[in-house]
Amino acid sequence: MASSIIRTTNLSSLPSIPALSSTSSSPFSSIHLRSHHHGAVSLCTAEKFRVSCSISDSSPLPSHSHRRRPDYIPNRISDPNYVRIFDTTLRDGEQSPGATLTSKEKLDIARQLAKLGVDIIEAGFPAASKDDFEAVKTIAKTVGNTVDENGYVPVICGLSRCNKKDIETAWEAVKYAKRPRIHTFIATSDIHLMYKLKKSKDEVIEIARNMVAFARSLGCEDVEFSPEDAGRSEREYLYEILGEVIKAGATTLNIPDTVGITLPSEFGQLIADIKANTPGIQNVVISTHCQNDLGLSTANTLSGAHSGARQVEVTINGIGERAGNASLEEVVMAIKCRGDHVLGGLFTGIDTRHIVMTSKMVEEYTGMQTQPHKAIVGANAFAHESGIHQDGMLKHKGTYEIMSPEEIGLERSNEAGIVLGKLSGRHALKDRLNELGYVLDDGQLSNLFWRFKAVAEQKKRVTDADLIALVSDEVFQPEAVWKLLDMQITCGTLGLSTSTVKLADSDGKEHVACSVGTGPVDAAYKAVDLIVKEPATLLEYSMNAVTEGIDAIATTRVLIRGDKNYSSTNAVTGESVERTFSGTGAGMDIVVSSVKAYVGALNKMLGFKEHSSTLRKNPSEANKVPA
Amino acid sequence: MASSIIRTTNLSSLPSIPALSSTSSSPFSSIHLRSHHHGAVSLCTAEKFRVSCSISDSSPLPSHSHRRRPDYIPNRISDPNYVRIFDTTLRDGEQSPGATLTSKEKLDIARQLAKLGVDIIEAGFPAASKDDFEAVKTIAKTVGNTVDENGYVPVICGLSRCNKKDIETAWEAVKYAKRPRIHTFIATSDIHLMYKLKKSKDEVIEIARNMVAFARSLGCEDVEFSPEDAGRSEREYLYEILGEVIKAGATTLNIPDTVGITLPSEFGQLIADIKANTPGIQNVVISTHCQNDLGLSTANTLSGAHSGARQVEVTINGIGERAGNASLEEVVMAIKCRGDHVLGGLFTGIDTRHIVMTSKMVEEYTGMQTQPHKAIVGANAFAHESGIHQDGMLKHKGTYEIMSPEEIGLERSNEAGIVLGKLSGRHALKDRLNELGYVLDDGQLSNLFWRFKAVAEQKKRVTDADLIALVSDEVFQPEAVWKLLDMQITCGTLGLSTSTVKLADSDGKEHVACSVGTGPVDAAYKAVDLIVKEPATLLEYSMNAVTEGIDAIATTRVLIRGDKNYSSTNAVTGESVERTFSGTGAGMDIVVSSVKAYVGALNKMLGFKEHSSTLRKNPSEANKVPA
Repeated sequence: MASSIIRTTNLSSLPSIPALSSTSSSPFSSIHLRSHHHGAVSLCTAEKFRVSCSISDSSPLPSHSHRRRPDYIPNRISDPNYVRIFDTTLRDGEQSPGATLTSKEKLDIARQLAKLGVDIIEAGFPAASKDDFEAVKTIAKTVGNTVDENGYVPVICGLSRCNKKDIETAWEAVKYAKRPRIHTFIATSDIHLMYKLKKSKDEVIEIARNMVAFARSLGCEDVEFSPEDAGRSEREYLYEILGEVIKAGATTLNIPDTVGITLPSEFGQLIADIKANTPGIQNVVISTHCQNDLGLSTANTLSGAHSGARQVEVTINGIGERAGNASLEEVVMAIKCRGDHVLGGLFTGIDTRHIVMTSKMVEEYTGMQTQPHKAIVGANAFAHESGIHQDGMLKHKGTYEIMSPEEIGLERSNEAGIVLGKLSGRHALKDRLNELGYVLDDGQLSNLFWRFKAVAEQKKRVTDADLIALVSDEVFQPEAVWKLLDMQITCGTLGLSTSTVKLADSDGKEHVACSVGTGPVDAAYKAVDLIVKEPATLLEYSMNAVTEGIDAIATTRVLIRGDKNYSSTNAVTGESVERTFSGTGAGMDIVVSSVKAYVGALNKMLGFKEHSSTLRKNPSEANKVPA
Repeated sequence: MASSIIRTTNLSSLPSIPALSSTSSSPFSSIHLRSHHHGAVSLCTAEKFRVSCSISDSSPLPSHSHRRRPDYIPNRISDPNYVRIFDTTLRDGEQSPGATLTSKEKLDIARQLAKLGVDIIEAGFPAASKDDFEAVKTIAKTVGNTVDENGYVPVICGLSRCNKKDIETAWEAVKYAKRPRIHTFIATSDIHLMYKLKKSKDEVIEIARNMVAFARSLGCEDVEFSPEDAGRSEREYLYEILGEVIKAGATTLNIPDTVGITLPSEFGQLIADIKANTPGIQNVVISTHCQNDLGLSTANTLSGAHSGARQVEVTINGIGERAGNASLEEVVMAIKCRGDHVLGGLFTGIDTRHIVMTSKMVEEYTGMQTQPHKAIVGANAFAHESGIHQDGMLKHKGTYEIMSPEEIGLERSNEAGIVLGKLSGRHALKDRLNELGYVLDDGQLSNLFWRFKAVAEQKKRVTDADLIALVSDEVFQPEAVWKLLDMQITCGTLGLSTSTVKLADSDGKEHVACSVGTGPVDAAYKAVDLIVKEPATLLEYSMNAVTEGIDAIATTRVLIRGDKNYSSTNAVTGESVERTFSGTGAGMDIVVSSVKAYVGALNKMLGFKEHSSTLRKNPSEANKVPA
């Protein structure tokens, strides 16, 4: 993990900072990813770009300077240009419809976020459900205690509403981390006060002050406070409540544009006003949290940082409720590309070479697929319809690209990604998976190895994308209640689609059922339903071939909803949420992978039910702060 | 088509404009669309939002005022607050990898853009290929001549490089429109001059001036000029070249941020500087064209408009090369929501109630799927994971939504979209399709009706999404070279996947082949290949169920590439482009729909080859300006 940052910049424009040597431990050269869409694209180095675009800054290529991530102190940052990255993929991102993650998936993403070097991981909303509580606690104990050689370890943060029970629960989950943080919030806009809270402004100030003080009283020295819907809140009231929570011990003040309504100039002004008018603001860090309802979250976040915010709340791929949040990758790359030129020298501690890998993992686990034209991480972001890869067509690569694919961990050429073949051994597979960010135990590796061999027998080349699909299919499946053993299908235009399915239950007992249906998947799912006997509605069904060629591995994803036994509490609204469950299956037979995905989603749902019913059987347990 | 615009605003803040009555002819109430993802969401009216968010503007609800789209004059706009919407979905959007559209699809989208009320349709790059030329000409003759009762008809624009042949070809294509425009461009940044054009600054000025004058000399009174890569061009040089093309007769000056590198403050400053320093700028309209490489295109566009641009170039869903362009829907809705409060009273002529329908059509035809968290038009944009649709949970809808789904033509409830059943007749189907924007002839309707009945027999409810899938599958298929007659498949985990396929060629002769494969789709595609004998590489394969439920209709999309016989010219780079071809298939049997998609893509490719080989056989034809 690189906690010292290498940036090419003109030293003369910077405050003087000691030049440290780089200690990046993940050599980029080992990372290859293959486009699902197109082959080769132009590669343009950062240096070329700097030569080409910095017309106003025509100094010769600057020598490498080294800016260090400042030591972590909750309420202040020693380097005035350093912007903390607060990643809320696991909390706000997971609130996206259908993005429910298992604890195992959350832990995996948290590990990847630490590789990326995010300053703060908001790991969940511990009071939402026992699952959420356990996931945050596990992340705090593991990722929150993995300190690298430069002293970097991410802050682990838990969200809580402004009440004692939520705050206690959050503390019980995060306190195991080296650097625990509680993030508590209450709405401050007139519309929320009137319709949601039904409280007066003074009552809300009283609650906020008391609850921040309560969080500090538990021993938590790092407390973040958010006035929800700040974008629509009355200015004078904002200054007042923020001043009061600073007195009560808040160390970060987060300013959310909860409904995503502000334009960049407005949001920047809001941050500037808060900085200018809130008593005691110099003793805390100001943060942004911008929703994307008008497509302006990245611009608003940058505008906030330009106006003085030094923490930005973002998610990988910009996922989140409705139109999502500001994207980590867009904000970070904009700061990297333009921080010196336009943003007064701002910089972050992110090792951008892990962006693509993290993006793919979040896409895979949440099922929130990025569009091909998603900035930075979309499949087309570095692809051109034009024949740029044709010999001699491209006269200079900097003409159309402003950053190099390598900067974000993407290497594409005709050779990229073809790393393993049918003669590759178990060791090579394990090494490659480690490089890709997957840590497997021996049993998992063993299972995967046989799957890999089977694919390698049939496909000419096994790419990283194939491996990721297999890992996701084999290793990150929820604990199996039901397991697909065998199936056979007949379909087409000439007869009735018919499917026979054989499943094993958790005791290993085999069950067989057959059904007809409107198509092969319908027939197979109906056969599964005959065995599992758990009512579920299919909400989404999608499939993507992950590799070029007709013999591709296809990944199927389904999203299902059960009955109302499957619900938890929404962090922001406090309302009961009907959870939805996704399942994925990968393979070369799309009907088989469709059934695997469905069985996986059913297993995830049944696992959730078991947790919930534990709570239901012991209602006292549900209200008790878990230990 | 609504060319007069209804907006709720505070009259006192506006310049005085005569209040005309609304004449919208597409009653919103007839438009229902169903989410693919989730059921009901909260509906919040614009009025509620205005009450809730306009803290700084606490006047009572304003009465309806009516702002009119000003009469079209190429080089000036009578209302200083009116922003022209220039849609380039069919030109820049179609340059997206894999987004190649047929002429029929282009015409359909152009019709929809006219419904939306865009001021200018950039219909293509006529010199790129004969296909492109014909599509622009057809759109000019039809959509470009359909004047509504308010005198609205979109300008039809054709792109051309700065050379006589391109300009003549563009004019030959657009001249049939009531309001034709030629858009010509040349690069002006140092990096492009040096590496791509290999010309001096003076040479480029000379070319630009001469070519604008040449376009005017052909009889075209509406000429747009773009200095490509303006974002990285030297300021003084920009003022000079722009001043010269104004003298030569340009009526619109478009300022592209070609590589998407600027931040909003920078781009706004660029527009302000151009406005302040270019001789004669008061006699033309300034335009923006922002690429999205850093995720800032919407913000940059708004910043440009705020600084004086009165035309904005956008695409539906933000599609385009790399990370795409500014999204029409984001820019338009931001201006609609915040034009009065933050942007000094800006407004557009867009009838926003057609946004969702247009977005779906472009998604379907280009295969560029929007991510679920895409602002405004993403499947989740108005959905909440929380149980907001549960009775009594939502205390006030304005708390989390800043615009109403109805404003963009989206209505979602448990009942929405369930409009037709198995007892519905041909007339009901036709009416519904018209409301959805599809105009079918009797033969097409007849075919579709039988497909519709077959689906209605098997599914409980036939939604709009189902209908759109069927229309796309049945009507908007490329002209059939090969047609799928029948197929049968056996697959599963227990044997070899085997498929038998029967195709008819253009003479109706039947061909049968069978093949084994790694899965059912692989087997079937191999059988098709045995018959068609045309080498093609499968680049992408994806599938989505368009409706909830296991008996859903699934739409399959494939993208293929043939050999190098299939190429055309890239508008911007001038390079040879290896074209890719997409095909879609819809049905309840995913293997059958997969094969339909593949056959469709092959047909599209073979059709393209026929056009190309006509040109190749008569090389003189290729250089001649088509009549």
